[in-house]
Amino acid sequence: MRSYVHGYSEKESCRLAAQAGTLTELLHGDTAYPAGSRVLEAGCGVGAQTVTLSRSSPGAQFDCMDISAASLDAARRMAAHEQLANVTFRQGDIYHLPYRAGSFDHVFVCFVLEHLADPLRALAGIRRVLKPGGTLTAIEGDHGSYYCHPKSRAADLAVRCLVRIQAEAGGDALIGRRLYPLLSGAGYAAVAVSPRMVYVDASRPALVDGFTRKTFTAMVEGVKAQALAMRLIDEQTWNRGIADLYRTTAPDGTFCYTFFKGIGARP
Amino acid sequence: MRSYVHGYSEKESCRLAAQAGTLTELLHGDTAYPAGSRVLEAGCGVGAQTVTLSRSSPGAQFDCMDISAASLDAARRMAAHEQLANVTFRQGDIYHLPYRAGSFDHVFVCFVLEHLADPLRALAGIRRVLKPGGTLTAIEGDHGSYYCHPKSRAADLAVRCLVRIQAEAGGDALIGRRLYPLLSGAGYAAVAVSPRMVYVDASRPALVDGFTRKTFTAMVEGVKAQALAMRLIDEQTWNRGIADLYRTTAPDGTFCYTFFKGIGARP
Repeated sequence: MRSYVHGYSEKESCRLAAQAGTLTELLHGDTAYPAGSRVLEAGCGVGAQTVTLSRSSPGAQFDCMDISAASLDAARRMAAHEQLANVTFRQGDIYHLPYRAGSFDHVFVCFVLEHLADPLRALAGIRRVLKPGGTLTAIEGDHGSYYCHPKSRAADLAVRCLVRIQAEAGGDALIGRRLYPLLSGAGYAAVAVSPRMVYVDASRPALVDGFTRKTFTAMVEGVKAQALAMRLIDEQTWNRGIADLYRTTAPDGTFCYTFFKGIGARP
Repeated sequence: MRSYVHGYSEKESCRLAAQAGTLTELLHGDTAYPAGSRVLEAGCGVGAQTVTLSRSSPGAQFDCMDISAASLDAARRMAAHEQLANVTFRQGDIYHLPYRAGSFDHVFVCFVLEHLADPLRALAGIRRVLKPGGTLTAIEGDHGSYYCHPKSRAADLAVRCLVRIQAEAGGDALIGRRLYPLLSGAGYAAVAVSPRMVYVDASRPALVDGFTRKTFTAMVEGVKAQALAMRLIDEQTWNRGIADLYRTTAPDGTFCYTFFKGIGARP
């Protein structure tokens, strides 16, 4: 479990919840499943997206699966607290999905493929559990899409640490740009990928706080100990990089990041 | 005139025309001026945007200005060929606009600020020729927003040459991310900036050809001689970089670039 780059701490659960709140409309606004659909959320984690899924599609039935028992416990508590009636949880491995072929009308994966050493194999396995004509929806970020004003070499280096740590753990923090070839390569049909860009300036104070500060910069800050232990950066450069990321939240600063959302159908 | 990074060649005029065609809806689809408006297009160049402006706002009257007599000649020929009835051309310096204060209902600048050593001063001068309540619309790219799949260090270095050459000429190829602070800093009110991201994959063949190949990569290729003469890169790396940019047009490749459109009003 240690290879999950963002860790499993309480603080991290808060970050994921804040992220989900800020980005809900941008990422999930166009996802709704018909009543009666059976939907798998593969890699649901602590349930950060589950509440949105459940509420956007009240007539669908969600099977939410994750490899981490601790995350599932948190997700179950969240679902009980939010009184989600159309959600069940189950532990399982995304490479060996514990479902028969053709079990689902739709599958949803969000911020999961970036952590996998072999996303193509996972996507092929997901295809197997879809009914013919059923769809996969995948949402991923791409840390290479980040840029800001004022520009900062130290901030770039700090962000690059996150990319390298995720690569070291077997993942790919630059996977957003690869969604199209991954879904196509895994045998999905009618693949359509759309970018979801987050642009932040002082006229968008909710994003300044909710995205630049509490989502992106908090995520980078979360790997400080690992980055220093792995000697990817010296502490002075790191601290300056983090300070420069916060500097972009000043009235004359701007910040950019892009998520990618891909949809494909089982032929 | 030599400091205009893209040059004034016939081939470059074709590139600008191809670019305008591909991106018209993305960049200009939400720009239309009311009948009776008097609009200044500052830095119209060869008129690549002028035809779109003129046709989108047939009842407005456009004063199109550029510092280059040769570009204005090309723009006048284009306007005659396209039978644009609501456009007149005039030579002038964007730092010393040849118009009285409060002459215009609206001003439009596109791919101009990136070439200026002092965009803030130009924007303040534009504010002067606007009527109170009149708007400025500014559109710029940001070469730091480029990324692609497959990733290529050589392609990154080739693109960086363009950024450095433009900086050497006194411009800023990364100006898109700065539009918000620039417009705010120049005294505009109600500043609103929106990103216009171009995402290209094999499912969008018109963009693969019209944007990745004929707009972006052609633009980078256009500075090869300068990049080599300035010893910013060796020829082998350059050639590999350009080949890698074309490589992104294969069925499994993707390409991303973001323009920024900003609007502000004279208080």
